[in-house]
Amino acid sequence: MAKKAKKYVYFFGGGKAEGNAQMRDLLGGKGANLAEMCSLGLPVPPGFTITTEACNEFYRRGKKWPAGLAEQVDKHLARLEKISGKTFGGVDNPLLVSVRSGAAVSMPGMMDTVLNLGLNDQTLQGLIRLTNNERFGWDAYRRFMQMFGDVVLGIEHDAFEHALQAVKDRRGAKYATDLDVEGLKEVVEEYKKVYAAAGKSFPQDVREQLSAAIDAVFNSWNNERAIKYREIHNIKGLLGTAVNVQMMVFGNMGATSGTGVAFTRNPATGENKFYGEYLMNAQGEDVVAGIRTPQPISTLSRVDPKSYKQLLDIRKRLEKHYRDMQDIEFTIERGKLYILQTRTGKRTAAAAVRIAVDMMKERLITEKEAVLRVDPTSLDQLLHPMFDPKAEKAARQISSGLPASPGAATGQIVFSADDAEAWAKDGKVVILCRIETSPEDIGGMSVAQGILTGRGGMTSHAAVVARGMGKCCVAGASDLTINYATKTLTVGGMTFHEGDWISLNGSTGAIYAGKIDTVEPKLTGPFGVIMKLADKYRRLGVRTNADTPRDTEMAVRFGAEGIGLTRTEHMFFEGDRIIAMREMILAEDEQGRKKALAKLLPLQKQDFIGIFKALKGRPATIRLLDPPLHEFLPKDEAGQREMAEAMGVSVQKIQELVASLEEANPMLGLRGCRLGIIYPEITAMQARAIFEAALEVRGAKPEIMVPLVGHVKELANQKKVILDTLQEVLAERGLKKPPFEFKIGTMIEVPRGAITADEIATEAEFFSFGTNDLTQMGCGFSRDDAGKFLKPYVEMGIYEQDPFRVLDRSGVGELVRIAVEKGRKTRKDLKIGICGEHGGEPSSVEFCHMVNLDYVSCSPYRVPVARLAAAQAAIKHGKKGELLTGSKPTTGKTKKVAKTAKSVSRKKPSARAASR
Amino acid sequence: MAKKAKKYVYFFGGGKAEGNAQMRDLLGGKGANLAEMCSLGLPVPPGFTITTEACNEFYRRGKKWPAGLAEQVDKHLARLEKISGKTFGGVDNPLLVSVRSGAAVSMPGMMDTVLNLGLNDQTLQGLIRLTNNERFGWDAYRRFMQMFGDVVLGIEHDAFEHALQAVKDRRGAKYATDLDVEGLKEVVEEYKKVYAAAGKSFPQDVREQLSAAIDAVFNSWNNERAIKYREIHNIKGLLGTAVNVQMMVFGNMGATSGTGVAFTRNPATGENKFYGEYLMNAQGEDVVAGIRTPQPISTLSRVDPKSYKQLLDIRKRLEKHYRDMQDIEFTIERGKLYILQTRTGKRTAAAAVRIAVDMMKERLITEKEAVLRVDPTSLDQLLHPMFDPKAEKAARQISSGLPASPGAATGQIVFSADDAEAWAKDGKVVILCRIETSPEDIGGMSVAQGILTGRGGMTSHAAVVARGMGKCCVAGASDLTINYATKTLTVGGMTFHEGDWISLNGSTGAIYAGKIDTVEPKLTGPFGVIMKLADKYRRLGVRTNADTPRDTEMAVRFGAEGIGLTRTEHMFFEGDRIIAMREMILAEDEQGRKKALAKLLPLQKQDFIGIFKALKGRPATIRLLDPPLHEFLPKDEAGQREMAEAMGVSVQKIQELVASLEEANPMLGLRGCRLGIIYPEITAMQARAIFEAALEVRGAKPEIMVPLVGHVKELANQKKVILDTLQEVLAERGLKKPPFEFKIGTMIEVPRGAITADEIATEAEFFSFGTNDLTQMGCGFSRDDAGKFLKPYVEMGIYEQDPFRVLDRSGVGELVRIAVEKGRKTRKDLKIGICGEHGGEPSSVEFCHMVNLDYVSCSPYRVPVARLAAAQAAIKHGKKGELLTGSKPTTGKTKKVAKTAKSVSRKKPSARAASR
Repeated sequence: MAKKAKKYVYFFGGGKAEGNAQMRDLLGGKGANLAEMCSLGLPVPPGFTITTEACNEFYRRGKKWPAGLAEQVDKHLARLEKISGKTFGGVDNPLLVSVRSGAAVSMPGMMDTVLNLGLNDQTLQGLIRLTNNERFGWDAYRRFMQMFGDVVLGIEHDAFEHALQAVKDRRGAKYATDLDVEGLKEVVEEYKKVYAAAGKSFPQDVREQLSAAIDAVFNSWNNERAIKYREIHNIKGLLGTAVNVQMMVFGNMGATSGTGVAFTRNPATGENKFYGEYLMNAQGEDVVAGIRTPQPISTLSRVDPKSYKQLLDIRKRLEKHYRDMQDIEFTIERGKLYILQTRTGKRTAAAAVRIAVDMMKERLITEKEAVLRVDPTSLDQLLHPMFDPKAEKAARQISSGLPASPGAATGQIVFSADDAEAWAKDGKVVILCRIETSPEDIGGMSVAQGILTGRGGMTSHAAVVARGMGKCCVAGASDLTINYATKTLTVGGMTFHEGDWISLNGSTGAIYAGKIDTVEPKLTGPFGVIMKLADKYRRLGVRTNADTPRDTEMAVRFGAEGIGLTRTEHMFFEGDRIIAMREMILAEDEQGRKKALAKLLPLQKQDFIGIFKALKGRPATIRLLDPPLHEFLPKDEAGQREMAEAMGVSVQKIQELVASLEEANPMLGLRGCRLGIIYPEITAMQARAIFEAALEVRGAKPEIMVPLVGHVKELANQKKVILDTLQEVLAERGLKKPPFEFKIGTMIEVPRGAITADEIATEAEFFSFGTNDLTQMGCGFSRDDAGKFLKPYVEMGIYEQDPFRVLDRSGVGELVRIAVEKGRKTRKDLKIGICGEHGGEPSSVEFCHMVNLDYVSCSPYRVPVARLAAAQAAIKHGKKGELLTGSKPTTGKTKKVAKTAKSVSRKKPSARAASR
Repeated sequence: MAKKAKKYVYFFGGGKAEGNAQMRDLLGGKGANLAEMCSLGLPVPPGFTITTEACNEFYRRGKKWPAGLAEQVDKHLARLEKISGKTFGGVDNPLLVSVRSGAAVSMPGMMDTVLNLGLNDQTLQGLIRLTNNERFGWDAYRRFMQMFGDVVLGIEHDAFEHALQAVKDRRGAKYATDLDVEGLKEVVEEYKKVYAAAGKSFPQDVREQLSAAIDAVFNSWNNERAIKYREIHNIKGLLGTAVNVQMMVFGNMGATSGTGVAFTRNPATGENKFYGEYLMNAQGEDVVAGIRTPQPISTLSRVDPKSYKQLLDIRKRLEKHYRDMQDIEFTIERGKLYILQTRTGKRTAAAAVRIAVDMMKERLITEKEAVLRVDPTSLDQLLHPMFDPKAEKAARQISSGLPASPGAATGQIVFSADDAEAWAKDGKVVILCRIETSPEDIGGMSVAQGILTGRGGMTSHAAVVARGMGKCCVAGASDLTINYATKTLTVGGMTFHEGDWISLNGSTGAIYAGKIDTVEPKLTGPFGVIMKLADKYRRLGVRTNADTPRDTEMAVRFGAEGIGLTRTEHMFFEGDRIIAMREMILAEDEQGRKKALAKLLPLQKQDFIGIFKALKGRPATIRLLDPPLHEFLPKDEAGQREMAEAMGVSVQKIQELVASLEEANPMLGLRGCRLGIIYPEITAMQARAIFEAALEVRGAKPEIMVPLVGHVKELANQKKVILDTLQEVLAERGLKKPPFEFKIGTMIEVPRGAITADEIATEAEFFSFGTNDLTQMGCGFSRDDAGKFLKPYVEMGIYEQDPFRVLDRSGVGELVRIAVEKGRKTRKDLKIGICGEHGGEPSSVEFCHMVNLDYVSCSPYRVPVARLAAAQAAIKHGKKGELLTGSKPTTGKTKKVAKTAKSVSRKKPSARAASR
């Protein structure tokens, strides 16, 4: 007790600080940053930080301040008065402060803040004098009273709102801003009554205000929502919150005051030019109110050349220090510039790429850092046609859905796949609008500019297929009423008919009425530089999922090194093929099936020839037929009637067929290699088509992939059919050996397949993880049904992310890791990739690198995303994955990419430029 | 080439043999056994065995005999002539031999056999003279010619059949047995023509016959079906087949000859008394033809006292040597007794138990051996009422289905669950006959004597529920046409109406017309001794799956040490409860759900009180609500209409509700803990019912089990609800601590749960493997749909057994092993059990022992099965499982329990008593 009290308070101000950026644990994130900015020589409003240790001690002592804290606060307050030249509680030049929480880990909005502390009936007069703005003073006072009452004393927020409303009503004011000085004075009177009614009194003693506010911040560490937040985000081991007490500065103290926001480079284009806006004699709220228009930052050079020069200097210093584009908030109080905040600036994808490349060229950052600076996901935006931003801004948004597949599309509405195809044939550009899509719609989807659905999520059929096609899609726009009978789309009282123009932004989900001009993407320039760097640093190969020569060509242009997944069944839905397919299903014996399959053979062969040609010698993993047969049959009676006619059998027979193929859980039913095992003639036909095609295209490298293998004997069975077919094909041509390279391998998508990968690798030359199905079976989540609980699960924090979007590392990922380890134990040179949707998602790509896969495969438009994500993973974890021999990947998130920019476009910058 | 030839031939005969039982690899199984029997001093017909090495050499040399083999065969043939006093090719006393294959591993029926070799036109006359039976001689000759032509020379089997048919037609004979000597002579002539037509000639030279037959056996090693057989059964590393050449003996050489079969003890009852049948002057075929009635073995003491005395002596010697009940075949040829075969005798379950216990008391075997002698699966038979065997034999079998749940049942047919309940109320005994059953039928099933379904497999709803109830069930009797409208069951042209009597044998699947008397089981005597021994040796605990006090009491009587699974949802289907359940589902908000749940609370509480009482202090694992809510709703319109009325809402509303709850893959949908997480009030109600019940029953030990957990946070979420409820319940009663023990744990049934068991164990106090679902998700097999491919899979040998019946060790089992290892790593004292259907299947129980589970849980009637299987596992693998730290369980079958009896009742013994 007698020993000297611990240091609980750290000062910053006047170009010096007792703390620094490394002291987050003790000073909290905000406190450490303020200290750092101050040490950097930035003109930060001075203040002090009470440590997290003090908070911890506060709780340990039953919510009492630790010994010495009160004295230290007093001492630093005095120092603050000295450095600011203002007096706390003084009438002439009153010192007002903000009191803010700030833990070591950011918990936005979870804890409490009090602004304008230090106001009372006396100091208010000083403020009015200084600002020469009576209304501002009274407004600040009533706001402070409300905030203090609510946050510090725990008086019902509503009580203040009711009091305010009563005054507004009496005075016929709609908004608080409509109240004049008299009105505001009345509000202050009413607020005092609210205090009294709550059995509290508003403390006129500013020191009492301060200590109560500090108590309140301490207490807010353990309020219910903060505890909940830490639980959900698994934040543990923190001491408590720090408390930042900082001098308030005001940009509305006359013509020599002002406030603004600036970026060290242009956040929209990345151009290396100082960029920003400001308003003189204003505070943030003025800008939000939209009454006055902010000025471009360059004009400040005329209005306040000293401050402007100082800002240019700060800009340079910040970029040198932080080595990234910064977003700063500043206030000029009576000619003196204050920097309130600096942080890494948000930017568009295009800007992120350009800034990274420019800074690398300027030698501000290294190549590796440049690679780490770009959010891979954002690249997708750069590959699609985009709306001209001005045109989009001007357009009339009628609704929105899920941003299911990026890009922009403009076209005339049609309501069926058949119509889409017919209209497209007539040279029209169409948007296919469906309640939801099914495999039968593939043809129409492929000719449409974009796809709009009223139902379904990010992994609905429309979304998955559209992403695969690189086609713009807005899915699950639940506001829409789509009526096939009347061919209308109704939303918000408007009705659109077939042929009406609409536009979709697949990157944001926005739906617009009318046409909007689009601009084409460029793959050169800074984008090309970043991609080249990515290829230099990555170890993972990147392939594409493509079912057509067109997709293949596009993916190769985006840098794909081969095909990781061709879904042969997609080929069966097109045109007449579905008829032969249905004949096959209807056939009663092997002979009948073979006859129908013979019709499909030349078509499949042509498909493969096209794909092999487009690949120009790159390998192609081709998956044998996967979906259950019932997916090829019409579900509705009309379709069944049509099929019956086409097949020359009764409708009843078709219905019996459909009924006999119905399954309780089709996901776990007769599909994948189970089909090829029960009907080996299907496998034989597909193998023949592949081999015959490979014989015709020089450099073809087929890799035949058997789906849904759970037991090595399944693969052995199918491998035999494939190799027997090869022998037949060769024998027919008098060949002894195939003149092309080929491999036979399997999807690993059934948990049992992963668990017994050592056995399966005795037969498989390669594995490809089908992480979609592996997630379904591994987690027991039917993708079609999981919406009902998966969304709440993510909201509740049971899963951190949707495991269908981001690979679930500790569960599904662990199955992947086990399979890699076991598979390579059996076959050292086993080639291993991934072809689920995760192959184009950065965190999942990182995991694939960590467990040492050979490649990832993703839809064409995701290829650049995967290339960049793979490079970032290699830079972060070393070229060889970290986890090959480890027992288990960490469940938590991997280290955050320091300063990776999120490409979210900024709101009006001045919205945050409030005085503080 | 010059070195002395290897020994390729081993002789046996005259009480001595060159080989022994250990030389299976070299002599094949049959050859080694013959040698062993001979060394034992049994009067085995003499002969010699050509080694598997000779066969191997034969192939190595391009199908030529190895050097020295021919000479060795000649030498041993001469030895055989000498010892038998007969001459090969001699006319006076011709030596006839059998030539048989026999590999080290039994491959029944896969390779070739030739009997009566040594017959030609001359030796035939000698045979006729010796047997004094011209017809027998000619019949043997024509049979030999056909067998030799077919097997050795490869002449089409059909050619012989056509020739025989032609003679029969000419002579107006329906069967070959109708042909007289002249007719048979004509057949021989015709057969010679068949040889000629095939460009072959029947060799009159008996040595040529012999060497050709040996060649044929060698060749049969690599015939297509033998290769396939070895592939399927994964038989590798064998040298080839051995060839056994053995003297033929005949029981039909006059009044001093005979043939028979005997068991060293009674195979039906186990009584320690010599048992068997014989016929003098007969061969096996005479008995099969049913013309003469075999005599009980005891009468042989009068007919041939010398042979009988010799048999009694052999009986004693065999039991002493083999230490098990033996089944022997013998022939007396002109007063000389020959033993043709001895092997472990098949026996009924009752006999197996009695023999094991008796032999242990006689000190022939040890306690452990006695435990190993009984096939656990067979015990089930002993626990159910059985048909009086005579009455069953006399009954009229009308069809058969799958033996889905053992026992015997007699009753009047009803066609709906409601009718079953109504009739049962009137005191009638009924058999519930349904196309298939659903959860709504539970009530009717529970009052029926037995259940018969036309569709569904061993794991269909009817089968699973019936086994759980210990009720006789025959499922999937696909011959039946069941018509609900006319209330009729039609099969084989017969029609049964409601109220007609039928009988079911659930152990065999037989369906009979009319009543059959049943006998009740006894749990004392030898059965009690074996069970006591099992308990002495087993380490695994055995619990039961029981949902009612009645089942619980029964299981405790059968030795259950607690409940491993109570499915609370079964309680919701009964009577009025379904109404409250449906109200809950229909409710639109938490308030409405809580209101409905409040009605269920007292009912559930009473259920638990009943169960706790029945357990008398034993623990009860209670699973929270598991099935998807749509299972509680009526699927048909009539039911929906009824529900609408009961709930006072429109039918449309009910239909909308049903539609909204429909799922694409309900197996992977909103069920298990997902329900409790979305609707915590359900969990709270169930937890309250459990705790309130536990407070009322002294010694209650609830173990609350959260189903379908895949992520530790799911369990944490539900655990909190349960513990909060506990606090509420205690607070209401002013208690600080619960006055009962309890645990909270989880099912491990989702692969992700197994893979992340280390994380889950941080929250779980126990695991229980739900291997049904773990198999569904782990293998990707929907149990409802897998029939289409799983049956062919087992037939093709892709899976050795149905993984829903026998735990798939290398896949699902590996998940179990991983989970045990990871779970115990986190929590050393984690209690781990299994409650899937596998918990009562011996091979699966063995696996559970090997991976060190704490207990298995199974349906009441399987409790004794599990107790015995657990003891056998402990005896075979040691008390501590072998695999705790191993990386992986062996995939193959475990060592066969030597001489474990299969309880298959014997056919007429004389059927195999053919001369050889």
